[in-house]
Amino acid sequence: MSIRVLGLDPGTAIVGFGLVIFDGQSYQPEKYGVIRTPSKTPLPHRLLMIHEQLDELIEELKPEHVAVEEVFFARATTTALAVGHARGVILLTAAEHNLPIFEYTPLQVKQAIIGYGGAEKKQIQQFIKNLLRLESIPKPDDAADALAIAICHCNNYRLQSLIRPQGVVSD
Amino acid sequence: MSIRVLGLDPGTAIVGFGLVIFDGQSYQPEKYGVIRTPSKTPLPHRLLMIHEQLDELIEELKPEHVAVEEVFFARATTTALAVGHARGVILLTAAEHNLPIFEYTPLQVKQAIIGYGGAEKKQIQQFIKNLLRLESIPKPDDAADALAIAICHCNNYRLQSLIRPQGVVSD
Repeated sequence: MSIRVLGLDPGTAIVGFGLVIFDGQSYQPEKYGVIRTPSKTPLPHRLLMIHEQLDELIEELKPEHVAVEEVFFARATTTALAVGHARGVILLTAAEHNLPIFEYTPLQVKQAIIGYGGAEKKQIQQFIKNLLRLESIPKPDDAADALAIAICHCNNYRLQSLIRPQGVVSD
Repeated sequence: MSIRVLGLDPGTAIVGFGLVIFDGQSYQPEKYGVIRTPSKTPLPHRLLMIHEQLDELIEELKPEHVAVEEVFFARATTTALAVGHARGVILLTAAEHNLPIFEYTPLQVKQAIIGYGGAEKKQIQQFIKNLLRLESIPKPDDAADALAIAICHCNNYRLQSLIRPQGVVSD
């Protein structure tokens, strides 16, 4: 039994994605990268591009679960609004495909991968490279972040399965 | 010549809408109201409901222009993110229908309707009631806000037409 998890890192300019297959022990990256939208394109059309390209990616990669970073801002509200636009479209697209969506805070992602919340971005990226047996650190950062979120969910999913074993039928 | 303008006031719990037909002189409200989503429903499904219902509204009302409030927050980033989610889905839905989208700040809306930016919400609602020859103030506030945004755009559209008259062909 394995699970196909699509990690997503939302933004209006760039959306990171990474599909990880997890068999309960090892992680295999099937595809990762970014959806980019041109900065001079009006926002509604950028959102349309994100919607269409994510739709195609879901058709192609057939994830079973989607994992998204739970955004938590201390910064500007304009950033929150911009990320919200892209995030809304991403959640919608996953819901259109009837996919369960899981959200993790950046702290949860760090803890799941390195084991503690104080880890540096570079450390996490190095760890992901090793864990997925990649030749180099995934570029750009958004793709690496998306893979990290997917791995975090795989990890959490395994723990959940251990606590509530699948195949046990209660009547 | 008249124009059909759909005003939208975005939120995840409630989206106000109002279709106004403007013939260059008078404003006629064709339909207004709200799309509500249940608070206990997960966010992705609320966004799906907004997307589907707005899609149906656009099919039914056949607007030529869409006008949305340009959000400008001084408040919490969590609110900005939540509004961003709904707003992203709204902009996407309009873009899917290939509709031009116009954005107005709350100040622009007030100025277009009452003539100055310091107007109270109640004053604006009363003015809209009179302008649209309604029997009562549109309820809830989100529907009234959506009508205000539509009227603001009609007004702006008329001014634009005066400056750049339609039907003039330059070669």
